[in-house]
Amino acid sequence: MSYIDLPDNYPGIRSLMMYRPETAEPLNHLAQTLLRGESSLTPGERETIASYVSQLNGCKYCSETHGAIARHLLGEQSATVQEVWKDIDTASVSDKMKALLHIAALVQNSGKKVKKHDIEKAKEAGAEDQEIHDTVLIAAAFCMFNRYVDGLGTWAPDDDELYDRIGKQRAEEGYMTKPFSVDRE
Amino acid sequence: MSYIDLPDNYPGIRSLMMYRPETAEPLNHLAQTLLRGESSLTPGERETIASYVSQLNGCKYCSETHGAIARHLLGEQSATVQEVWKDIDTASVSDKMKALLHIAALVQNSGKKVKKHDIEKAKEAGAEDQEIHDTVLIAAAFCMFNRYVDGLGTWAPDDDELYDRIGKQRAEEGYMTKPFSVDRE
Repeated sequence: MSYIDLPDNYPGIRSLMMYRPETAEPLNHLAQTLLRGESSLTPGERETIASYVSQLNGCKYCSETHGAIARHLLGEQSATVQEVWKDIDTASVSDKMKALLHIAALVQNSGKKVKKHDIEKAKEAGAEDQEIHDTVLIAAAFCMFNRYVDGLGTWAPDDDELYDRIGKQRAEEGYMTKPFSVDRE
Repeated sequence: MSYIDLPDNYPGIRSLMMYRPETAEPLNHLAQTLLRGESSLTPGERETIASYVSQLNGCKYCSETHGAIARHLLGEQSATVQEVWKDIDTASVSDKMKALLHIAALVQNSGKKVKKHDIEKAKEAGAEDQEIHDTVLIAAAFCMFNRYVDGLGTWAPDDDELYDRIGKQRAEEGYMTKPFSVDRE
């Protein structure tokens, strides 16, 4: 049961966005800009960072949802998300992505954990300033989204097929369209 | 020195917002809605929550800035911010604010730390659902802003007078106006 009176038929952050549309608008706009806007990181790479940080924060709803979105966007390389969740060092991603995921993990802990040599390592692996900027802001933003979802005790379904449907919707439509309702038994 | 090439004459998040206006827009819109929009918590109370969470995260730029904004908004009760930073239990705030600040501190640690009894205590002290919602989202949002500011190694000045000027600007204008530039020696 959620901690405040939220609409029943929407899981996770969807229930919060239906409850408070005033804050939903900038939150969705932020997600759309960060995860789908202009960037030399692909949307699949950015969703992988989002799901990885959510998994580190133990946020089931966000890690499953953004993992499913990443799988839909990555297509053939869709095993990548599970590999990253398990161990970024052995995952089949580029050295640049490994260095960026390492920075994301530091940000998940605290912004102050990121040190100059972590940034230099990412630059040596080919990361540009804006890619480093976007990685830090994606990781920071999911530290917000995860706390928002778990701090209000929202519903995290145990239904892989539902996460896959949400993942397909957000992969195809981005973040500016309405969520669908879900029958809750 | 910041970790990426940011405009010189802007401290903290101001340098990041000048660097990446695409993400600055929804971030400022979120701050404006959360901290100045419709709510039964006053802007001074909301800024106090923001500065408290920033202080728990050890983010000098954000805690000083939002502390200064809160002081400008609270006027005569402006010692409140320092009292809250020191100890919420003895600070001269209402029992409702104490319960909400307690929830904010839990969210700062992890969304999963918030339990039903923490919410019940806030409700017993008179907190409404939307006040609990806004407290959790303010605390979560500052876990983002703090990580963004520190994770990219931005400049946090040692100049109380400068924080006071920033505090005055944001107290009077909100979050949708341009930052002023600062001579950096």
